[in-house]
Amino acid sequence: MSKLDYKTLLVTDKFEGYEDAEKFKLWVPKIEKYRKDLDAGVLPEYKIDLPKPVDQLIEEQFNPLKYLYDENLLTPTEFEITDISGTELVKRISEGKYSAEEVFKAYAKRGTIAHQFTNCAMELFPEEGLKRAQELDAHFKSTGKTVGPLHGLPISLKEQMNYRGKITHGGYVSKLTNITSEHGLTTQILEDLGAVFYVRTNQPQTLMHLDSNNNITGLSKNPHNLLLSSGGSSSGEGSIVAFGGSSIGVGSDIGGSIRGPSAFSGCHGLRPTTRRVSLVGGVSGGAGQESVPAVAGPMARSIDDIDLWMKHYINDGKPWLNDAWSLPLLWRDVPKPEAKSLTIGVMYDDGYVKPTPPIQRGIKEVVKKLEAAGVKVVEFKPPKILQALDAVHKMYACDGNYMQRKLLAASGEPLVKLTKWSLNYGEGAKQFTVAENRELNMIRDELRTEYTKFLVENKIDFILSPTYNNVAPQSEACYNWSYTALWNILDFPTLVIQTGLYQDPTVDKWDEDHKSYQYRNKVEQLEHEIYDPEKFVGAPIGIQLSGRRYFDEEVVAAGKTIVEIFGTDLFKQY
Amino acid sequence: MSKLDYKTLLVTDKFEGYEDAEKFKLWVPKIEKYRKDLDAGVLPEYKIDLPKPVDQLIEEQFNPLKYLYDENLLTPTEFEITDISGTELVKRISEGKYSAEEVFKAYAKRGTIAHQFTNCAMELFPEEGLKRAQELDAHFKSTGKTVGPLHGLPISLKEQMNYRGKITHGGYVSKLTNITSEHGLTTQILEDLGAVFYVRTNQPQTLMHLDSNNNITGLSKNPHNLLLSSGGSSSGEGSIVAFGGSSIGVGSDIGGSIRGPSAFSGCHGLRPTTRRVSLVGGVSGGAGQESVPAVAGPMARSIDDIDLWMKHYINDGKPWLNDAWSLPLLWRDVPKPEAKSLTIGVMYDDGYVKPTPPIQRGIKEVVKKLEAAGVKVVEFKPPKILQALDAVHKMYACDGNYMQRKLLAASGEPLVKLTKWSLNYGEGAKQFTVAENRELNMIRDELRTEYTKFLVENKIDFILSPTYNNVAPQSEACYNWSYTALWNILDFPTLVIQTGLYQDPTVDKWDEDHKSYQYRNKVEQLEHEIYDPEKFVGAPIGIQLSGRRYFDEEVVAAGKTIVEIFGTDLFKQY
Repeated sequence: MSKLDYKTLLVTDKFEGYEDAEKFKLWVPKIEKYRKDLDAGVLPEYKIDLPKPVDQLIEEQFNPLKYLYDENLLTPTEFEITDISGTELVKRISEGKYSAEEVFKAYAKRGTIAHQFTNCAMELFPEEGLKRAQELDAHFKSTGKTVGPLHGLPISLKEQMNYRGKITHGGYVSKLTNITSEHGLTTQILEDLGAVFYVRTNQPQTLMHLDSNNNITGLSKNPHNLLLSSGGSSSGEGSIVAFGGSSIGVGSDIGGSIRGPSAFSGCHGLRPTTRRVSLVGGVSGGAGQESVPAVAGPMARSIDDIDLWMKHYINDGKPWLNDAWSLPLLWRDVPKPEAKSLTIGVMYDDGYVKPTPPIQRGIKEVVKKLEAAGVKVVEFKPPKILQALDAVHKMYACDGNYMQRKLLAASGEPLVKLTKWSLNYGEGAKQFTVAENRELNMIRDELRTEYTKFLVENKIDFILSPTYNNVAPQSEACYNWSYTALWNILDFPTLVIQTGLYQDPTVDKWDEDHKSYQYRNKVEQLEHEIYDPEKFVGAPIGIQLSGRRYFDEEVVAAGKTIVEIFGTDLFKQY
Repeated sequence: MSKLDYKTLLVTDKFEGYEDAEKFKLWVPKIEKYRKDLDAGVLPEYKIDLPKPVDQLIEEQFNPLKYLYDENLLTPTEFEITDISGTELVKRISEGKYSAEEVFKAYAKRGTIAHQFTNCAMELFPEEGLKRAQELDAHFKSTGKTVGPLHGLPISLKEQMNYRGKITHGGYVSKLTNITSEHGLTTQILEDLGAVFYVRTNQPQTLMHLDSNNNITGLSKNPHNLLLSSGGSSSGEGSIVAFGGSSIGVGSDIGGSIRGPSAFSGCHGLRPTTRRVSLVGGVSGGAGQESVPAVAGPMARSIDDIDLWMKHYINDGKPWLNDAWSLPLLWRDVPKPEAKSLTIGVMYDDGYVKPTPPIQRGIKEVVKKLEAAGVKVVEFKPPKILQALDAVHKMYACDGNYMQRKLLAASGEPLVKLTKWSLNYGEGAKQFTVAENRELNMIRDELRTEYTKFLVENKIDFILSPTYNNVAPQSEACYNWSYTALWNILDFPTLVIQTGLYQDPTVDKWDEDHKSYQYRNKVEQLEHEIYDPEKFVGAPIGIQLSGRRYFDEEVVAAGKTIVEIFGTDLFKQY
């Protein structure tokens, strides 16, 4: 039997009013200039000589993160600085143990290497970062005080967020002329809190892939296996954070865009409940869409850092003062719960796409660990999953892709593969009426209430689920969003936690039964046919932990307990 | 010059697909039955003999609230019970000073009289209320404890909220067969907290008038002047709460529907920020509409009671456990601010419809009082008011009235005058596309942020504004929503506060300049032509106090300070 081609699943393969080769030609010089500027940001003082050309490393499923350690590409001090949590790092800077400058240089080096291997950056400006770090040091020296609770912390930013004086394109070629005079609100808040910026990271065309391809700087790769995708749409954030090129990264998520890259690339990441982190000041095709709104959130190698970021961003940054969409809901200090106090519902299979062997094994192993630690584990079968997915898919495209078409057609740029896939969500190019949109909202609100009541009535604190039916897929072969998008339509805060487990081709094979497995739908077939144990070597296994709306603090606190139970330490992987 | 007719302002005067006289005939017996049941709820033990037929009282601009006191229609104890705050009342019940039964009877009597004069009720069930009060007393007697913080408090409910075992029609004839087995969530929470129900109150067809007419039980009248409207759409709540027939009432507001009836009828009322009070379980034409969502909120004769209701409803009721739309945002204890600490922006004229003489005078007088008390007062001219009004009007009808048509056409009932007016909001029957709806949302979000920043940057704590360009209008002659709807699109919590001032025909005349006044638009002309000083005698003057989103607590706390400055005491008006 020949494998399913994704094209057979498209509502339409015609994309009228988008591509225009003649128009696009005019933009090519701008792309070339942009790439040249990116290359110029790879400074000699930070870069390394790659062991082989990247194409060859990709083929070999090369693991750059392991290589970093094996070859001691950093000095012991640089390793020390880049392999502690941001929470510990700001403490040490504030105690004068490290200068912001030395911290910056260590991260800039590690981040530059990350980019050389994975193509995670869209813009590198380490000279500005260095200057900023030096200014912070001068301030600290003269006043004896930090400028804020994130003083000196290197934070990477998804490119779609406006950056003062720089181009912000959001993955759209047509926006390569968009230079804003101000930071986006979240960037500004982080800067005010003391963060140091030097890198803006990769994202796919339209921001609607769980992958990374675009016509500006292309694909990002997985830091554990260059054959694989770093995920998306916060694609570059996944690579750079997991590689340790920044202490904390900022992504955004409307269907899995923080969680996909976190799980795939090998870091933790929080998709907060909506309206806690501002997206004001940025490029996206979803402006004004509030049926399933996007939200920004942190990605890091330590759950403490997720907490640190959320706490200071919200409580000190007060985004609601400058963005009426944001809620004045302070970040509460919630203590790490006892394992024995927790009841966790586990979703083994969402009923839409059954997980592949590494995910099946991962879930089983973590359930064992949780139970051994005293957590009460119950099985959770998500109610009305097909209805939820149908509604959320329609929501994504129910403006008939009006805004996407506008942003894409303005340059006539070619549509990359997964853009076609996501433009076909729901009913593709069909413009819904307002009444139809409202019906989707009603379905959504009923689902939210049903799930909430279910958790409350059954005294289930959290749901643990796969992040995706597979580990990191190969580039441009990630189709199913069901595991992540469910939490978007429900708007449940969801934390991706690394299990400390990795795909292992010797054990993660389909079992015999799978030969006679009856696919429940074509997406499942497509996703299952993709899985070849030999092609996903060493991919991290990250799971999701979800809680009720606005109980982000509880989710993060429980995440700390669970990471301890798992024994995951992302600072000591190789 | 002949006066403007409202029909000249309609986008269309054709309403295809609505009315159907033949179909409606089948519903008439259901309406008759419903009215008969309502009449049967006027019990002999509570009713009075009206001094004259209501039609005649209307013509005479009769003041039933003054009559209540002048004629001593209640016993001294009944006056004592019904003329203290709910806050004091629950305290006294919990101390055993009053039984729930005697409290109930006093309110049932006063409420029945309110209904006899104003037609505020849609459903009266005092026998059930009495039984409930007796049960509460029995519980208190046997346990020594109240069932909750609102134990024994008579609370009136806008009819649209589902009530266990009863019809809920929301003003739509087609819903006269809608009997729900459960309370709406807010009703259930109030019941769980100890409230006593015996009356469900009037609202207009479609819930989209600042007035009260419908084909089921007709108009509600103003308790200070029967010629005037009680406002709407929480029409009956305005009458019954201002008259003292319930201690606290529950209304809902999408364009002014709590604030109009509060201001017009003579009580205080809070339109909270959205998502703090649940509307789950009820009838409305706005389901799934979230561009400018409706919100429920309390109406009362004391600001303390607004605070009491919000605090216990939110903190004890926890609506988010059963409604994922509601935010787990606890009600904060905010102390009453010092007058001297306040900076208040005053909107004298919104730039769309200039206020009539009583409102002009009211604002001037309260500004004097505020300044005398040490409040810093600055003028506030609302930015982009026309853009805001254009957007909010479009939002109301941007489903092309699909849902309204569905609900109205199901019975074929005749469209009452102000239904035609509101069906013409925005672009009337035009179905907007999702993309167009999203553009409206973007405009809204920019406005919200602009207003928020303006307040923050100018250190303005609150905005004080008229509730409407006039005092309570005559029935079915309330067209302009600009003063209230602005705060809906901004989603700023807004408290209507009674100034303790009333229209006075001897002073509230147009000044000479008004003869040469150039109307800025036709709605202004229509509204100004309506104002004849002799026809609004004694109408209360209520103003609005607005604060930033989710600063409901601060608005209510400042409201207490301001009421003290005004010297308003709604328990001692006549």
